[in-house]
Amino acid sequence: QPPIDNSATAGEWQALPVKAESPAANPTTAEKVELGKKLFFDPRLSLTGTVSCNSCHNLMEGGDDGRPSSMGVHGSIGPRNAPTVWNSVFQASQFWDGRSPSLEDQAKGPIVAAPEMGMPAHENAIKRIAAIPGYQTEFRDVFDSENSVTIDNVVKAIAAFERTLVTPNSAFDRFVQGDRSALTDKQIRGMQLFSDIGCTECHSGPAFNGWDVGSTTQTFEEFPRNAESQLVGQYGLDRDLGRFAATNRKSDKHYFKVPTLRNISLTSPYFHNGAVAKLSDAVRVMSETQLDTELSNEEVESIVDFFSALDGEFPSIALPRIPSRPGESVLEDQEPAAVGE
Amino acid sequence: QPPIDNSATAGEWQALPVKAESPAANPTTAEKVELGKKLFFDPRLSLTGTVSCNSCHNLMEGGDDGRPSSMGVHGSIGPRNAPTVWNSVFQASQFWDGRSPSLEDQAKGPIVAAPEMGMPAHENAIKRIAAIPGYQTEFRDVFDSENSVTIDNVVKAIAAFERTLVTPNSAFDRFVQGDRSALTDKQIRGMQLFSDIGCTECHSGPAFNGWDVGSTTQTFEEFPRNAESQLVGQYGLDRDLGRFAATNRKSDKHYFKVPTLRNISLTSPYFHNGAVAKLSDAVRVMSETQLDTELSNEEVESIVDFFSALDGEFPSIALPRIPSRPGESVLEDQEPAAVGE
Ligand code: HEC
Ligand code: HEC
Ligand code: HEC
Ligand code: HEC
Ligand SMILES: [Ca+2]
Ligand SMILES: [Ca+2]
Ligand SMILES: [Ca+2]
Ligand SMILES: [Mg+2]
Repeated sequence: QPPIDNSATAGEWQALPVKAESPAANPTTAEKVELGKKLFFDPRLSLTGTVSCNSCHNLMEGGDDGRPSSMGVHGSIGPRNAPTVWNSVFQASQFWDGRSPSLEDQAKGPIVAAPEMGMPAHENAIKRIAAIPGYQTEFRDVFDSENSVTIDNVVKAIAAFERTLVTPNSAFDRFVQGDRSALTDKQIRGMQLFSDIGCTECHSGPAFNGWDVGSTTQTFEEFPRNAESQLVGQYGLDRDLGRFAATNRKSDKHYFKVPTLRNISLTSPYFHNGAVAKLSDAVRVMSETQLDTELSNEEVESIVDFFSALDGEFPSIALPRIPSRPGESVLEDQEPAAVGE
Repeated sequence: QPPIDNSATAGEWQALPVKAESPAANPTTAEKVELGKKLFFDPRLSLTGTVSCNSCHNLMEGGDDGRPSSMGVHGSIGPRNAPTVWNSVFQASQFWDGRSPSLEDQAKGPIVAAPEMGMPAHENAIKRIAAIPGYQTEFRDVFDSENSVTIDNVVKAIAAFERTLVTPNSAFDRFVQGDRSALTDKQIRGMQLFSDIGCTECHSGPAFNGWDVGSTTQTFEEFPRNAESQLVGQYGLDRDLGRFAATNRKSDKHYFKVPTLRNISLTSPYFHNGAVAKLSDAVRVMSETQLDTELSNEEVESIVDFFSALDGEFPSIALPRIPSRPGESVLEDQEPAAVGE
């Protein structure tokens, strides 16, 4: 029973899974998730003690930071827009250029990236965590061995937490599961148009990113495909070589991972460089650069309206208590206060 | 019935109130607290969108940031250590120098302080919040009027939330309420010593800061009182003129608010300049500079041990969902991404 009657619908519309699988090498357990949550929110993993994963992937909102590109320790600005971590488990690789094969592998990056958390080396982060008695105990309990505060276990815990960050039951999901009243007429028109003009060529599957449940191959596409569009220069969309930097293969120049469109209305600004502030303009960019199609304002609006139906249900998260080193900070190596007059 | 039998105990030991009163001008309501919580956690109140109240007053831990002095937008470092916001309602004034008379008044400061949230003016923060439909609705509901997104209402909501940040039922509280097994013998010795040598002269009352329930006068004390101590130079404790900067009264030179000692083991480093990393050293500084007394290592340890009994129960806080401007960030005025190769 097709969800909408128009048979022109190319998409096999799929609801988002309500739960993500975990890999055999890192089975999800409740305790591991709790530990990973603490680490995800813990700014002491950064050089200055001011930047946590949540700083750039704010789980109180879209799982992003709302900035064109992220700002890490010492106010340094990176080259790319922070993608959402909501539903990041529903893809076969991580980063805009897909250079990381797993959530575990990915989480090693930001801790030591200069414009992100800025640690000189993983050991420095491990030293901080190991100095906190509460973490020592928790790592031992979760990983069932002594000396278990290691970078591999840190990223296992973080990845286990990230696998819980799924947002099912959007209006769209309810619609494709049979609740015809979940979408407005305008949203249904937008959904139809999204399929008719070919957006679903790339943005298919339950997360609208070409991925299917169980798939381990990642979809990459050229962007911008139509380099002629004046929008390319206007937004500087051809400066980043994308996947080429990761593989050094000429054919990967300007190829990017097809990103999820789940909760897309919460993750402005758009594209790998965050140069496009408005979702309506992002839709125009896509139709012109990827499909060589000009849309009317009304058409753009209907797609934006459809996108608002992709806002999912966010699980309620209790603020973690992150453990302390009693009577002593682990940031004792920081610059002293500026001297007052 | 005195809590510990030794009558040398000068202190009238008092348990922490489990709930704080709200002022007539800003009655606490559940909806106002919820709104204030969102604002407290919302980094969009800062220039770069990266710094919230919680950045420096981390409620996942001691309500502080663990740094000698705080780091605000663009990595700028301020002159003072961030005090905890846990139990900040239990004092008659705010800031190390007591220059702010209320939580409402206090909250106006950081938003526009250059090394904190760095907004050029309150209007800029208000403009951001007002651009977010969900906030518009919530402010209207909480303050029961149109155009209620004002700086006065922002700080009222934040202060209402802060009034819920109390940590009762510490081991100490249970002890003074009659549970003699709540403290260890060593902690009781530390408690006794704390009183015997005169710490309670300044650190009295339920929050150990000279404040009593209902009191509206703030206790200020000279620090360091014994300027001769070599610890003064070692830690640069005489550089900040304290309350003098707020009042310009000569007699206020080097006067500081007596701070709470609740959860003191979670708020290293210590003193207004955060120069003392360890709680044991902070105890030595106090006894030498305030009481001209040298303590043995064993004595210092017993007081530190007593202090661990002041760790309270932290209320469980659900991570708020902060509202979005759909399809558009409110940080559209930020620098673009650094250009990649
Ligand atoms: C200072 C900002 C910043 C911090 C801190 C940060 N990230 Fe990111 N994150 C980014 C940016 C920017 C990207 C995209 C980089 C790229 O594609 O080259 C990214 C990418 C990711 C991705 C890939 C998502 C996708 O769809 O491709 C995940 C997952 C992720 N981060 C998780 C984390 C975790 C876990 C931490 C903490 C250990 C963290 N991030 C810390 C900014 C940040
Ligand atoms: C040929 C493949 C392809 C087609 C067709 C396509 N997209 Fe995309 N889409 C991509 C890729 C790749 C990206 C990531 C671009 C980048 O590097 O920022 C993207 C990004 C986006 C984004 C921004 C995501 C974000 O988080 O910033 C939106 C919105 C979007 N697409 C919507 C659409 C719409 C609407 C259509 C149809 C009009 C469409 N796409 C057609 C491949 C495609
Ligand atoms: C960049 C760091 C930073 C940010 C952001 C920040 N604060 Fe503070 N806060 C401090 C510092 C440092 C002090 C002490 C300043 C002084 O005494 O001169 C302080 C003092 C306070 C106090 C007084 C506590 C006491 O016992 O005297 C309260 C309450 C407070 N802040 C609440 C807030 C609220 C509410 C916000 C957000 C609107 C906020 N702070 C944002 C660093 C920060
Ligand atoms: C004459 C008043 C006075 C006496 C007596 C006194 N204190 Fe203090 N105490 C203060 C003041 C004022 C401060 C704030 C100093 C500053 O500006 O950092 C303070 C700060 C502290 C701090 C650091 C608080 C923080 O958050 O950084 C600790 C710990 C402390 N006192 C413990 C003690 C102990 C233990 C004793 C007894 C050995 C003691 N105090 C005696 C007035 C006093
Ligand atoms: Ca984005
Ligand atoms: Ca702390
Ligand atoms: Ca402190
Ligand atoms: Mg967002």
